[in-house]
Amino acid sequence: MPETTKLAHYIALSGGVGGAKLTLGLSKILPPECLSIIANTGDDFEHLGLNICPDIDTLLYTLSDLNNKTLGWGRADESWQFMAALKELGGESWFQLGDKDLALHTLRTQLLKEGHSLTAVTRQLGQRLGINNNVIPMSDDPVRTIVKTSTGELPFQHYFVREQCQPTVSGFHFDGIESAQASTPFLDALQQPQLAAIIICPSNPFVSIDPILSLPGIREKMQTTNVIAVSPIIGGKAIKGPAAKMMHELNMPCTATAVCQHYGQFINGFVLDTVDADQAPAIESLGIKTLVTNTVMTSLDDRIQLAKTIQHWIIQLNN
Amino acid sequence: MPETTKLAHYIALSGGVGGAKLTLGLSKILPPECLSIIANTGDDFEHLGLNICPDIDTLLYTLSDLNNKTLGWGRADESWQFMAALKELGGESWFQLGDKDLALHTLRTQLLKEGHSLTAVTRQLGQRLGINNNVIPMSDDPVRTIVKTSTGELPFQHYFVREQCQPTVSGFHFDGIESAQASTPFLDALQQPQLAAIIICPSNPFVSIDPILSLPGIREKMQTTNVIAVSPIIGGKAIKGPAAKMMHELNMPCTATAVCQHYGQFINGFVLDTVDADQAPAIESLGIKTLVTNTVMTSLDDRIQLAKTIQHWIIQLNN
Repeated sequence: MPETTKLAHYIALSGGVGGAKLTLGLSKILPPECLSIIANTGDDFEHLGLNICPDIDTLLYTLSDLNNKTLGWGRADESWQFMAALKELGGESWFQLGDKDLALHTLRTQLLKEGHSLTAVTRQLGQRLGINNNVIPMSDDPVRTIVKTSTGELPFQHYFVREQCQPTVSGFHFDGIESAQASTPFLDALQQPQLAAIIICPSNPFVSIDPILSLPGIREKMQTTNVIAVSPIIGGKAIKGPAAKMMHELNMPCTATAVCQHYGQFINGFVLDTVDADQAPAIESLGIKTLVTNTVMTSLDDRIQLAKTIQHWIIQLNN
Repeated sequence: MPETTKLAHYIALSGGVGGAKLTLGLSKILPPECLSIIANTGDDFEHLGLNICPDIDTLLYTLSDLNNKTLGWGRADESWQFMAALKELGGESWFQLGDKDLALHTLRTQLLKEGHSLTAVTRQLGQRLGINNNVIPMSDDPVRTIVKTSTGELPFQHYFVREQCQPTVSGFHFDGIESAQASTPFLDALQQPQLAAIIICPSNPFVSIDPILSLPGIREKMQTTNVIAVSPIIGGKAIKGPAAKMMHELNMPCTATAVCQHYGQFINGFVLDTVDADQAPAIESLGIKTLVTNTVMTSLDDRIQLAKTIQHWIIQLNN
């Protein structure tokens, strides 16, 4: 009798929009049980008494096809009556919460208050949204990204949304990271014997990926497998978000190579866009393998195509 | 020099819809500083992590003219996207929360969590809604009306909304009442030297008014002034709500007289509708003065007219 084929397993580390695009592509080409989607929770915050998890939500909405493709966050066909009424009442209105979106935050807050872990709550919300894939919070313990800026330290959402990324960034720290434990399904995925690779999605390296990598023991646990990062910088710019602005303010060249160097020897493969093909030799000279391909994901086909290309490359790297 | 005229002060004890109608009438004929509106908080409950105060809200929305005149609760021009999304997610959907209404609950919950008293929070919400009158919670301590029914004890909103008043009622108790203190502005109003009368609005005697009267020491403090009750039962029926059904199930005749007897010697004036004029002699024979007038408040004019008539009667009683 032939041996049962053990299916290869993939881990995707993801922040919000950019990461969710590739994650969606991966979810379309891999069986659900072969993909562990690890979400950054450093962006999470408590607002108006609600537990809000922006990256988890973007993943949940993207995977359930409920995401607002115009805004890039929140739900499609959203309405804003709550916000309008809250503003009239003099409530805090800098963080936009759509009427439908609010249902997710309210339910999460209620379930967390009942004592369920963020992992369990996120799984339940995913199931209720009809998602086959399991979105896994990086940790059940609160980790909060703090942005060091010219105007002082700012909690991430205050920097990102309230201040609209205006203050000049000088660094980051992750409150609570020292005592935070990686979530059980994240640790389980890292111990999968069939783990083919960890894919760092094209998310912001500083505020979406670094919180995940900074969890105690995680870098060590990742050393035994392929770690592939996809550049969020294409032609010197970020598709979305403040990554390029941050690199400039941190006195880094705003290039794919600089992202690769930021991750350093810890990764062994780097995916960069065809427009940045000329940077591949320098990266290869660091001992990091490169894949040059189209990484701009405009359509669903783009997402699936990039996921396929990366998977094929990983299979090659492993053979 | 003539003495400064001290303006007479009135206290209105109110539940939701019926009480709010008369309260609105009173607010139109009295200067704001001459009217203390005391709201029942026995209906309050925590739902989906929110602190919801149905009677306070009905008063706030009625006094700010934001109330939904069709539904009789909640806000006008309401939308229901939050509820629809919550239902899709499998959340508890038996208690309807409109998108705009949700802003009030969210803000209240946030302010209470910050440590402000319900009295302070309610005053602030009233100001933000542009209300000149001060809506005063009966207490800052949680009191919760429990309905004893054929199917067991039910928290009030579960009986009223979830079970739609179907279970047969056998009694009530008010959780927390023994240790609850009347709120400071309620106590202050009771000590007003110019207090002309306490008006018990046409609210449900068992679940809207009794919680207020059951606060420790309140009946005693009310003994030194006129207490006037307006019948919520007109022609054997309640305009709205389960008062008549409750009276039937409690083996009480469903009459204005029975309401009057329920309040007992504690009141010294009773307002009943012209359709119930034949009950006046029996009430007078109990030593309780009666005012027979139109008490059905369909229009704003009706509300103002009833308020005026009651005020004139109180002035007569006091002279």
